[in-house]
Amino acid sequence: MNVYLDNNATTIVAPQVFIEMEPYFVQKYGNPNSLHAYASDTHPGLKTAMEKIYAGINAPTEDSVVITACATESNNWVLKSIYFQQILNGDKDHIIVSEVEHPSVLSTVKFLENLGCKVTYLPINNEGIIEADNLSDMITDKTAIVSIMWANNETGAIFPIDEISQICKEKNVLFHTDATQAVGKIVVDLQSLNVDYLTFSAHKFHGPKGVGALYIKKGKELIPLLHGGAQMDGYRSGTLNVAAIVGMGKAMEMAAEAVESKKMDEVRRLRDEFEDNLLQIADTFVVTPREIRTPNTILISFRGVEGESMLWDLNRAGIAASTGSACASEDLESNPVMEAIGAEADLAHTAIRFSLSRYTTQEEIDYTLKAVNSAVLRLRGISSSYAYSPPESIDTGKENNGHR
Amino acid sequence: MNVYLDNNATTIVAPQVFIEMEPYFVQKYGNPNSLHAYASDTHPGLKTAMEKIYAGINAPTEDSVVITACATESNNWVLKSIYFQQILNGDKDHIIVSEVEHPSVLSTVKFLENLGCKVTYLPINNEGIIEADNLSDMITDKTAIVSIMWANNETGAIFPIDEISQICKEKNVLFHTDATQAVGKIVVDLQSLNVDYLTFSAHKFHGPKGVGALYIKKGKELIPLLHGGAQMDGYRSGTLNVAAIVGMGKAMEMAAEAVESKKMDEVRRLRDEFEDNLLQIADTFVVTPREIRTPNTILISFRGVEGESMLWDLNRAGIAASTGSACASEDLESNPVMEAIGAEADLAHTAIRFSLSRYTTQEEIDYTLKAVNSAVLRLRGISSSYAYSPPESIDTGKENNGHR
Repeated sequence: MNVYLDNNATTIVAPQVFIEMEPYFVQKYGNPNSLHAYASDTHPGLKTAMEKIYAGINAPTEDSVVITACATESNNWVLKSIYFQQILNGDKDHIIVSEVEHPSVLSTVKFLENLGCKVTYLPINNEGIIEADNLSDMITDKTAIVSIMWANNETGAIFPIDEISQICKEKNVLFHTDATQAVGKIVVDLQSLNVDYLTFSAHKFHGPKGVGALYIKKGKELIPLLHGGAQMDGYRSGTLNVAAIVGMGKAMEMAAEAVESKKMDEVRRLRDEFEDNLLQIADTFVVTPREIRTPNTILISFRGVEGESMLWDLNRAGIAASTGSACASEDLESNPVMEAIGAEADLAHTAIRFSLSRYTTQEEIDYTLKAVNSAVLRLRGISSSYAYSPPESIDTGKENNGHR
Repeated sequence: MNVYLDNNATTIVAPQVFIEMEPYFVQKYGNPNSLHAYASDTHPGLKTAMEKIYAGINAPTEDSVVITACATESNNWVLKSIYFQQILNGDKDHIIVSEVEHPSVLSTVKFLENLGCKVTYLPINNEGIIEADNLSDMITDKTAIVSIMWANNETGAIFPIDEISQICKEKNVLFHTDATQAVGKIVVDLQSLNVDYLTFSAHKFHGPKGVGALYIKKGKELIPLLHGGAQMDGYRSGTLNVAAIVGMGKAMEMAAEAVESKKMDEVRRLRDEFEDNLLQIADTFVVTPREIRTPNTILISFRGVEGESMLWDLNRAGIAASTGSACASEDLESNPVMEAIGAEADLAHTAIRFSLSRYTTQEEIDYTLKAVNSAVLRLRGISSSYAYSPPESIDTGKENNGHR
């Protein structure tokens, strides 16, 4: 059985999304900027897609949603643009981010630090959550922008974006949120929030890879990301990736429907049941309370079980999970959120992330639960540091392995 | 009949390319950076694609080919990176480009001019060609980079890249070429040239939109385009667009085969025959000699025939052509290359670009020739400025319309 539980890394393209994309490769292949029927053949699809994307985040039509190549590009763009506008060519010198942002934010501000920018890293508490109160004291009259993710990719922790955006508005500081892990999983309503910039990416909600977006509030214009033919209102030149935009539109429509209907509730129910069962394994920890997490994510530590070893066992059983962000996973380092929380080093190395989707089934979860139980037993049995389960017990009570 | 003769704007995705891409949407959808079978399922396809891309431009394996979202992105990246490395944080202040570069180069250097960079625009001669001799005198010890396109998107003119790259090497100045209109149409062999950076894009040679590349010679490293998860050797972070890269690889393989085999010769033969017949229409001009043009392109002026009016007539007949770059075509301005050549203003407005592909057929060309003849007759007949063909003649000699 193959089970994909790494949906925070990327997702399957929904078959309906692929069906809508398909005509734009070999049939409706015109360049939308040309002046003939092959171009105008692409316009209705593009228009509909953009309408669905605006609707999915309830963005006011006066604001801009600029299609980019990915969330990494959106995050780079907003931070580098503000650096140009307000730091290099302005009187600000300061950016605030959380210490658990995605690498695309953390690496970008490191780059800007090397150019003379000051960066403050907002800590998370021992539940993996940002405390908005801390932010208020950090903002100075030199602060150009605050960039705090909406939901964390590792834990699923949902940060208090409403409160944070209020503080930024009161202090007259720009606010950007990387909502890559929020859009398509929870309600994102830009008409009820003071967000200036918002990043999201299609391949996290069953759209194709290679297409994301940056929402830009009216009056908060950035400098262009790419100069050239002035596509995307001059913000991002380059031939429009028609198939990808059409796919993103359909994926957004389907994701928004899933959030509004009971589909994401069912994901949450499956996740909660899975988590309840995992927590019956002794010496097992979950950091962030599930009520303040995205409905699909579990970051869980099995003491004495090296994360990579667990991945190996699960992979052999056909199950895909993660030790954390795919954007850092080749490093085999300890989980950065676990480190930020201040977990003991050996516990930080034991974190495993399961991220479900609306395509995850009960059968898959039941199968995975058994595989995890077996893996924990086996790996604790051969662990030099974990004095827990004598090897003899491996052969007894298979259905109750590790449940103590 | 539908005839697509706007292949310099974008191309149909080759059916074989689409077939190779298809599994990477709904089946092999893993994030290549993850640590499980869904990830490793993508690795052979990615590896093969990169090998085909290197082979297609004969790039030494020690050099980098970084996948980007498009040629516009590649052009922006190299110029902005050199600005950061050698102008903002170095002792250079000067960039040289040709006056007929693609908007993605011209707009980028305009942006850099506003940041204090000096830009020299190398002129074209009355055949639409760069004269390399002029370049030598323009290079100073303050010149950071020379950026000259390999082949012009409007005329198809092939610039003397070998000579230009030699001059840059002798003068110890970096050399970038936007080869977007060359790759897939003529031989591009990086082992026989002193090119430091080279831009190309899949959708110009029957690959998908949304994927391009920048070749970077070893030792000529740039600063990263996108900071983040360190994909693409740290140059361009962001989840790899697997389907698009696989598609680009296949498209590159097929295009290289077409250039090496007789397929592009057949395109040239069709183009030459088409052009010979078009030139039999009176008061008709082609600027660049066909021997120094890409094999698929004709930029032609019919005196007294407004380019947009011609497009309209052709579009009604099911034929897609262009008045010039799709990246500028919504502006309805006169053709920039015609302006650069110094053509009279009214002639610059009459330029029409036909760009063929290896999918263009004899039947399509014959059909188009008739449609152009009819359009020229009709439009000259109603032209206020062109005293050529009395209205009466429209009804006579249909097969010989305009052949005088």
